[in-house]
Amino acid sequence: MRRLLQRPARIVPLAFLGAVVVSTLLMMLPAARAEPGRAPFVTALFTATSAVCVTGLNVVDTPTYWSTFGHVLITVLTQIGGFGIMAMATLLGLLVTQRLGLRSRLMAQAEQTNLQLGDVRRILGRVALTMLVFETAIAAVLAVRLATRYDYPIGRAVWEGVFHAVQAFNNAGFALHSDSLVQFVSDWWICVPITVGVIAGGLGFPVLFELARELRKPACWSTHTRLTVWGSVVLLVAGFVVMLAFEWSNPRTFGALDLPTKLLAALTQSAMPRSGGFNTVDYAAMNSETTAVTTALMFIGGGSGGTAGGIKVTTFFLLAYVIRAEIRGDPDVVVGNRRVGEATQRQAITVALLGIALVATGTLALIALTDGVSLERALFEVTSAFATVGLSMGLTPTLPPAAQLLLVLLMFIGRVGTIATGAALALNTQTRRYRYAEGRPIVG
Amino acid sequence: MRRLLQRPARIVPLAFLGAVVVSTLLMMLPAARAEPGRAPFVTALFTATSAVCVTGLNVVDTPTYWSTFGHVLITVLTQIGGFGIMAMATLLGLLVTQRLGLRSRLMAQAEQTNLQLGDVRRILGRVALTMLVFETAIAAVLAVRLATRYDYPIGRAVWEGVFHAVQAFNNAGFALHSDSLVQFVSDWWICVPITVGVIAGGLGFPVLFELARELRKPACWSTHTRLTVWGSVVLLVAGFVVMLAFEWSNPRTFGALDLPTKLLAALTQSAMPRSGGFNTVDYAAMNSETTAVTTALMFIGGGSGGTAGGIKVTTFFLLAYVIRAEIRGDPDVVVGNRRVGEATQRQAITVALLGIALVATGTLALIALTDGVSLERALFEVTSAFATVGLSMGLTPTLPPAAQLLLVLLMFIGRVGTIATGAALALNTQTRRYRYAEGRPIVG
Ligand SMILES: [K+]
Ligand SMILES: [K+]
Repeated sequence: MRRLLQRPARIVPLAFLGAVVVSTLLMMLPAARAEPGRAPFVTALFTATSAVCVTGLNVVDTPTYWSTFGHVLITVLTQIGGFGIMAMATLLGLLVTQRLGLRSRLMAQAEQTNLQLGDVRRILGRVALTMLVFETAIAAVLAVRLATRYDYPIGRAVWEGVFHAVQAFNNAGFALHSDSLVQFVSDWWICVPITVGVIAGGLGFPVLFELARELRKPACWSTHTRLTVWGSVVLLVAGFVVMLAFEWSNPRTFGALDLPTKLLAALTQSAMPRSGGFNTVDYAAMNSETTAVTTALMFIGGGSGGTAGGIKVTTFFLLAYVIRAEIRGDPDVVVGNRRVGEATQRQAITVALLGIALVATGTLALIALTDGVSLERALFEVTSAFATVGLSMGLTPTLPPAAQLLLVLLMFIGRVGTIATGAALALNTQTRRYRYAEGRPIVG
Repeated sequence: MRRLLQRPARIVPLAFLGAVVVSTLLMMLPAARAEPGRAPFVTALFTATSAVCVTGLNVVDTPTYWSTFGHVLITVLTQIGGFGIMAMATLLGLLVTQRLGLRSRLMAQAEQTNLQLGDVRRILGRVALTMLVFETAIAAVLAVRLATRYDYPIGRAVWEGVFHAVQAFNNAGFALHSDSLVQFVSDWWICVPITVGVIAGGLGFPVLFELARELRKPACWSTHTRLTVWGSVVLLVAGFVVMLAFEWSNPRTFGALDLPTKLLAALTQSAMPRSGGFNTVDYAAMNSETTAVTTALMFIGGGSGGTAGGIKVTTFFLLAYVIRAEIRGDPDVVVGNRRVGEATQRQAITVALLGIALVATGTLALIALTDGVSLERALFEVTSAFATVGLSMGLTPTLPPAAQLLLVLLMFIGRVGTIATGAALALNTQTRRYRYAEGRPIVG
């Protein structure tokens, strides 16, 4: 643990790499596959990475290709991956805050952080407990609903409840139905608990923890919680409105649904791009406008220190505040009543621009590795992999192995990169020995 | 002139708006059109905006749709637009430098700026003289070549030489041939002067002026000149290599060309996206990889204070230096032996992110205004309009009027926005009266 905290940029990727290797070997066991024989290497690697990185992208049909043992494996890997991500991100987030505290006590006091680095084990316990509570509650609702409304046998109902609850809270998005959740598009008792699980898991543990204490005192929230919560609300509303506006009369998606179902489908689909990965409507049938907005929402992603991917809500809105300050000519970037330091701004820019560069390069590579794939579809799948979303326009299973390996790489970098790099950037500050005179290039 | 310098964010757009209105009325004169009758409003507005903003995008076939009077009009409008852009950008650039000088003398002295605000008339004179010299030289070479190799009558050869020289140095890109310059793809005497003109005009006057004095002393170059020159070299080489690599065996583009022609075509096409706008190869026939890279090059654009568009070379490379500093943990962003201040960094971020937002919104709007246009083609035309490049995959002439008006708006904002906003941002700095305590959201 001490080594993790000292060298996060090395330990985190190594830990994930180890997990992926072991998981791939497990998924290659003949017992994991429904039919006789074992899964090919690329299929096993893709599925293992997708589970451990809580992405949920598929190269095969999950319910029919894998055995029940395979499904249990996917559940366990998702759970371990999700816990690992939450725990590491939370610990590293604390470490960053702590380091800051050592450097500038006044600032750290002004920004009241509720978490202390002291008892690492206690924090990990809380992460585990939070996951357990959410997943149990979601699983219970799903199981009851599946048993009573759809006449599933009790065992099957409980198992499917647990499977999808784990997938939801960990923002993974594997499903035990070939159509993901499309058959449940009008079922509030299925869609709402899953959506709530996705949103809660996607907020991130630092935010969940603070909300548990101060839910009714938004004035006391830290800058991080405020940015994450209000930012998420803005993005959810935007996704909801865009879904309804663009898909309202599309006969292959919302057109055939009645009004309450339209609203429920829009609600569900507004949460899923960031980065739940389930779908109750077919993304391949959506308008180009909708997939373009969905791609943007996927890229932004969820909260830091959670199981959501993307560049993160805080990064996105922080940059919006930077632009606002620049346009208004404010010398400082102020969020609420807190100033955001230049170091944090520079970190946000780096995360966002590296994300853009990675998605652009990945899309270019995917187009080069395939024949005749449109930019729209390539960008969608690459963003889904990078932001560990798991939504698909149906392209991934049809890709050649080289292109699937590219997506594996993107899932891994998108997942591990945001945690490791973020922490590394925040910790890795050299002291200034001398300073050059200022140059002033003309910009824009 | 004094008002321009006091309120650039208002005066520059108003001046351009006035120029567009007058130009539209002129293009609607029956004499401007080749056939009887006058050009429809949207066609005239589009062509006028495209000329004044030195874009070169077309909704009609320039050689056949407009009369010779129309072609003369386009030349004059391009020349006025280009001169206006160069002059305003240069003056505003000076103003910014000057303002800085008043605030922090030491920094201004350390960064030796060769230009002084003193004689505005003298500077405008130099801009005009530089344009005249470049355009005369290019026109002369083209005229001689057209007369001797292609047996054009002298009058026609001179007129075409002048027309294309003005288009080249002003980075506009209208052509008097329906295929742009495709028929000259293998002619070094046509392609090289035009490419040189495009590159020189695209560097921007502040750089040209400094190079004229210090061409052989790169060690004395300012940070701005260094970033622009070396950045342009990097982007030109990248464009050259990408063109050759992706199009080498494409039978509809480079495949049919012999080796020297391949090299010349790659050279020409490497310069045109940033933002010359001529083409000697059909962009609609290129691979998706090539159009994706071309779109990125168009977005980056050329040098500040010139006729090139885009977010500008300095902005792009400055952000690369910011990322490098962040990854290395350097407290300062250092380019060469100069530190780049936080204000300049924030400006670069704002310009880049607003550019991304504008292109994304424009692309979404274009897709919404049309039926079944692919993301690749929509993004290409929107980026070409925003960065005032003028390259086209053939989509623009086929668009409905509403979508053409959208492109008009993008050309205007892309052109005027970068000058006015850039200067406004640099000038518009409030003094700090109090300072909030620092908040520290987790990023990434
Ligand atoms: K996911
Ligand atoms: K142009």
